[in-house]
Amino acid sequence: MASVETNVLALDFGGTKLAAAVVDPISGEIRAVQRHSTPARQGARASIQTMFELGRQALREAGLSVPTRVGISFGGPVASDRTTVLKSNHVADWEGMPLPQLARDAFGCPAYMDNDANAAALGAWAFDAHRQPDHMVYIQVSTGVGGGLIFNRALYRGGALAGEFGHITVEPGGPLCACGKHGCVESLCSGWALARDGRADLQQADPHSPLYRLSTGSPENVDARLLIQAAEEGDPLAKARIEHGFTALGIAIANVICLLDPELVVLGGGITRAESTMRAILEPVLAREVHPLFQTRYRLQFSRLDGKETLLGAALLED
Amino acid sequence: MASVETNVLALDFGGTKLAAAVVDPISGEIRAVQRHSTPARQGARASIQTMFELGRQALREAGLSVPTRVGISFGGPVASDRTTVLKSNHVADWEGMPLPQLARDAFGCPAYMDNDANAAALGAWAFDAHRQPDHMVYIQVSTGVGGGLIFNRALYRGGALAGEFGHITVEPGGPLCACGKHGCVESLCSGWALARDGRADLQQADPHSPLYRLSTGSPENVDARLLIQAAEEGDPLAKARIEHGFTALGIAIANVICLLDPELVVLGGGITRAESTMRAILEPVLAREVHPLFQTRYRLQFSRLDGKETLLGAALLED
Repeated sequence: MASVETNVLALDFGGTKLAAAVVDPISGEIRAVQRHSTPARQGARASIQTMFELGRQALREAGLSVPTRVGISFGGPVASDRTTVLKSNHVADWEGMPLPQLARDAFGCPAYMDNDANAAALGAWAFDAHRQPDHMVYIQVSTGVGGGLIFNRALYRGGALAGEFGHITVEPGGPLCACGKHGCVESLCSGWALARDGRADLQQADPHSPLYRLSTGSPENVDARLLIQAAEEGDPLAKARIEHGFTALGIAIANVICLLDPELVVLGGGITRAESTMRAILEPVLAREVHPLFQTRYRLQFSRLDGKETLLGAALLED
Repeated sequence: MASVETNVLALDFGGTKLAAAVVDPISGEIRAVQRHSTPARQGARASIQTMFELGRQALREAGLSVPTRVGISFGGPVASDRTTVLKSNHVADWEGMPLPQLARDAFGCPAYMDNDANAAALGAWAFDAHRQPDHMVYIQVSTGVGGGLIFNRALYRGGALAGEFGHITVEPGGPLCACGKHGCVESLCSGWALARDGRADLQQADPHSPLYRLSTGSPENVDARLLIQAAEEGDPLAKARIEHGFTALGIAIANVICLLDPELVVLGGGITRAESTMRAILEPVLAREVHPLFQTRYRLQFSRLDGKETLLGAALLED
C-alpha cells in the first residue's frame, strides 16, 4: 500500500445488506459509511446499482469525488483471477459478473475483489490482532459460515476457493446443508440452521418455556439470536440445540488447529456476539478435541470489530 | 539448491526402520541406500549410532567420503527452529536431541531436519507430481497417519507442527487414539489401529472365515495388511472395519480439500499399497463429502515412489 492511498472506497455485497464506506487503509479509520438492505429479489444488477449509489453517497459524505481505489467484498465465491463472481447463494444472475471492471468504470480508479470471508480475515488480521500473527484462521459465523486463512502474513486462497470452513463435514449423514451435503458445520451452527432448528423446536415447546414466550409461539419470530437467548434463559430444547451446534463448531476449529498450527483463531460474524455462551460450550470442546501438543499453541479471540472487519479488509485488497 | 549439491546424505529415522541414502537432489536418483531395523528399546543414542554407521556405509557404497549436505527426516515432531527433536512416539530419550548438530559433527557438512511427513510431502511434490502443483496435500497412512502441506510451492509448517492430519477428529467419542483423544483419523485407519481392530475381530471370527484362515487364529499374526487381505477375500468383519476406517479417512480428506483447495492430494505410506481397495471406498465418500464446487478442482493420487518420497524429500531439506 502506498501511503497516499488514504481514501479507499470499500464495498461489501452481503446477502441481506449492502454497505459502502470510505476507509483509510493505514489507520483503519472509517470516514463515512452508507448501508442499505440488499434488493435480493431484483437480481444482481439492482444490487450493483444500489451499491454504487451508496458508494457515491459515502464519497460525498467524506468530501471526495474520486477514491484512490475500490475494494470489493462479495458474499459468495469469486473466480480464481478475482475478476468475476462465480455465484451468489442469495441473489440471482451474479454468475460471471465482472464486478471490479464495473466498479472501475463507475468510479474511475483501480478496483479489486475477494469473497467476504477473505476480506474479513484480512481486516481482522490487520486491525483486530494485537500483533499481526504469521498464521491466522478467521471464522465467520453469521447467516452462513465461512473462513479465511492468513498464512505467512498473506491471504491463502489455494486454487481460488480455500477457506470453505463452513462445509467441513462434522456429522456425516447429519442435517442437510445449503450446499447439498449433510452435516457440514454450516448445517449445524449457522444463523439459518439455528433458525430452522429453533422453528422445529418451537412445535414441541412448552407454552411456559422461554422459547415459546420469546417467540410468542410464532415460528416466523424465531431466529438464531432468539434461540440463543432462549438457551441463555434456560430453555431445555434451545440449550440442546445450541450445545449441539457449537460443539460441532468446536470440533471443526480443533481440526483446523491440528492441521494448520495457527497462532490465532478469530471468530467473527453476528452469531459470535453471544461470546460468553459460545465460549462456555467451545472451550471444553477445544480442551478435549485439540491435540495435546497444540493446547498451548493457539489463542481463540472473538472479533472486536463488530462486523467492520469486512469493510476494513476490503479496503486492503490489492491485485 | 546449488547445482553442485549432487551428493546429499539423506537419513530417515522411522519408528521401526532406519534408512540412509546418498541422493542426487536434482534428479532424485538414489545412488546408495542402507537400511536397518530401529533398535527401539535401546533409546535414542543407539538409533543415532546405528544410523550414522548406515550413513557411512552408504557414502562408501557411493564412493564418497563427505556429503555436500545431510538431510534428516525424523519420525515425530521437531522444534519450530528444527534444530532439536520434540519427541518420538516410539523410542525413549529423544526429547531435545540436537540431531542436525550431531550430524554436522559426524559428517563435517551442513545438516537440516524436518518431520517425516513434511519430508515425504516435499519428496512427493518434487518427484511424484506430474507437474509440481502450487498447492498440494500429502497424507501418509502407515503405522501412524501424518500429513504435509505444500502451499505456494513450499512447505507450510504453521507455528511448527502444521499437518497433523492424523489427529483430525472424525468420530467424536470414537476409539482411543495414541494422542489421548478419541476418534482421530489415526485411531480409525492407521496401521496400528487396523491391527488392533483386526485382533478384536478375530475373537469373534468364524474359523472358516478369511480372517481366521489367514491369521491361523493367532492374534499376533494380525496386522493391517492381513486385515485388508481378509477384506479383499470377502471376510465380513474385516470388510466392515476397512470400510469404516477408510470412510473416516475419506471424510477427513474431503474436509481438507474444502478448507485448502489444493490441486493435488497424494496418499503415501504402507497402507496405501492397497490402492484399489482404498479407492473403492474413498471415491464414493469423496463424491458425497467434497463440496460440489470443489468436485472437479482436485486430483487424488497414490504415491508411485513406494516410500522413497521420505528419503528424497529429506535430501531437499534446507534451512
